[in-house]
Amino acid sequence: MGTQRESGEFVREPLGVAERITADGSSPWPVQAGRYRLVGARACPWANRVIITRRLLGLEDAISLGIAGPLHDERSWRFHLDPGGVDPVLGIEWLREAYEKAVPGYREGVTVPAMVEVASGQVATNEYAALERDLSTQWREFHRAGAPDLWPEPDAIERIGEGIFHDVNNGVYKCGFATTQAAYEKAYRALWARLDELSEHLATRRYLVGDTITQADIRLWVTLARFDAAYHGHFKANRHKLTELPVLWAYARDLFQTPGFGDTIDIEQIKQHYYGVHRSVNPTGVVPLGPDTANWLDPHGRAELGGRPFGDGTPPGPPPAAEQVPPIA
Amino acid sequence: MGTQRESGEFVREPLGVAERITADGSSPWPVQAGRYRLVGARACPWANRVIITRRLLGLEDAISLGIAGPLHDERSWRFHLDPGGVDPVLGIEWLREAYEKAVPGYREGVTVPAMVEVASGQVATNEYAALERDLSTQWREFHRAGAPDLWPEPDAIERIGEGIFHDVNNGVYKCGFATTQAAYEKAYRALWARLDELSEHLATRRYLVGDTITQADIRLWVTLARFDAAYHGHFKANRHKLTELPVLWAYARDLFQTPGFGDTIDIEQIKQHYYGVHRSVNPTGVVPLGPDTANWLDPHGRAELGGRPFGDGTPPGPPPAAEQVPPIA
Repeated sequence: MGTQRESGEFVREPLGVAERITADGSSPWPVQAGRYRLVGARACPWANRVIITRRLLGLEDAISLGIAGPLHDERSWRFHLDPGGVDPVLGIEWLREAYEKAVPGYREGVTVPAMVEVASGQVATNEYAALERDLSTQWREFHRAGAPDLWPEPDAIERIGEGIFHDVNNGVYKCGFATTQAAYEKAYRALWARLDELSEHLATRRYLVGDTITQADIRLWVTLARFDAAYHGHFKANRHKLTELPVLWAYARDLFQTPGFGDTIDIEQIKQHYYGVHRSVNPTGVVPLGPDTANWLDPHGRAELGGRPFGDGTPPGPPPAAEQVPPIA
Repeated sequence: MGTQRESGEFVREPLGVAERITADGSSPWPVQAGRYRLVGARACPWANRVIITRRLLGLEDAISLGIAGPLHDERSWRFHLDPGGVDPVLGIEWLREAYEKAVPGYREGVTVPAMVEVASGQVATNEYAALERDLSTQWREFHRAGAPDLWPEPDAIERIGEGIFHDVNNGVYKCGFATTQAAYEKAYRALWARLDELSEHLATRRYLVGDTITQADIRLWVTLARFDAAYHGHFKANRHKLTELPVLWAYARDLFQTPGFGDTIDIEQIKQHYYGVHRSVNPTGVVPLGPDTANWLDPHGRAELGGRPFGDGTPPGPPPAAEQVPPIA
């Protein structure tokens, strides 16, 4: 997933199969219903971005979903939650197999999300940022009726998304995987400065850009959703818990309670992954029983800020039966 | 400090020099002003119990205080905060030296608090529970005017103290040093059951036993004071932060703001010790910048429960200049 600089700073490694899937013939991979399987993991925030996007746009029938389990062995993501430990569509035990089909002798990171071509079993792309954008712009033909516009103001979304990526999404990893005090402190200060700025922004606005849910909200939310369960303790992002930040906590609950967000989350799998896999941070692999999470369902009071969550569209229906996550406890 | 059972449970090891210092000739060590130096550490809760007791009783002139720094090498506590890295009275670099003078070839834990006879340089006792009791009962001759009675109801204090010891004081260590999931979960459940019980008890009572501060409060408080800075994240005692438990958090602030408690605490040293020393839990030794601690000075509202903090006595004055800790930030 990444490496350490000599300074002890964590550096995320580049993605190994950075292709696009397009409707206009501009890439080797064409948009086509049933052709690809999205492989995600409930634990992973990068996968969560694409899974939420797929839910909001109603692409479940066009793109099936495979779920790698939270626990790795040294070969990275594997399908240990599936019967027989094998993805039922791709027929593989380790996601690595699909990467090696795409790139013989593949040596980069085996990451989720990955779009896998079902027929050939090879990874078409693991470039989540392009993918989440292409789901909105290239896969329009397969959107559900009432699908929202998640990219109403692309420049504004990318501008705010840039800071969210460096300081928040990746920032928590930079805190947790720092191997020197100086590298940790730099990441911690950038994280909290950015969260304070976003909190101020959201104090008077229901969503990050405009008055509807956009891709910018999805990006921020996937980190907030994991904050207290993983990043606060495991990654030492601990100035406050999310539950102690009134604006961001209400914002996160608002989206949690919006169809397409909370129904993609499994806190147990998140904790199992972070605490169970990163033995360099948590040598015993013991998974904490806390935090108490029942409060995700508390009223959020954000509706009074106005906003039209789905713009001219509508909320998605419930997830397909096979994709349901356990209710929050 | 302890070992692991095969089940992964942490077991605190017995104290190596479990003697008593008495006024009645019943032990080899007589009560005598100036004869002993109490060696503590700001980081350590067991030392903190005795340091608070000494402050409340006004024994500063009778028993001097040496402070081991927060960081260990493999030889355990050392005086790395003192000029030249040497305790100015005992003239030693490592506390181990005083243990070895008492017990040649000493192989048990080198722990604080330790009462060291200044003239011989040997540890007289490291039995903190007997010591804190003896400071009240055996050292009466040297108490300040207005010293409180910290043992008004010995049986009630020992009864409630027993549960605090096993489930709270030592319970957080059992959470953090568990090497199996089952051992951790057992300790976590016992900790939170006990904290819930204590919280209910304190909802309508200002102090644990009777209506004054007693040794029972000192025992509970030293763990609460370290809870969010160390035990919540580092030891996975993370159902809630202390700041999320209204009764215990107000109780802890009330005592923090009482002379003799908050003026013995150094949160930075606490964090440096736990995160810097336990490399089996935190391999990098990176010390978190959080949590925000300014709220320890917030109003606590507990005075309306009544209570007479020092009974018929009075609060202690400020600590001697040489013993002052940095103000909470």
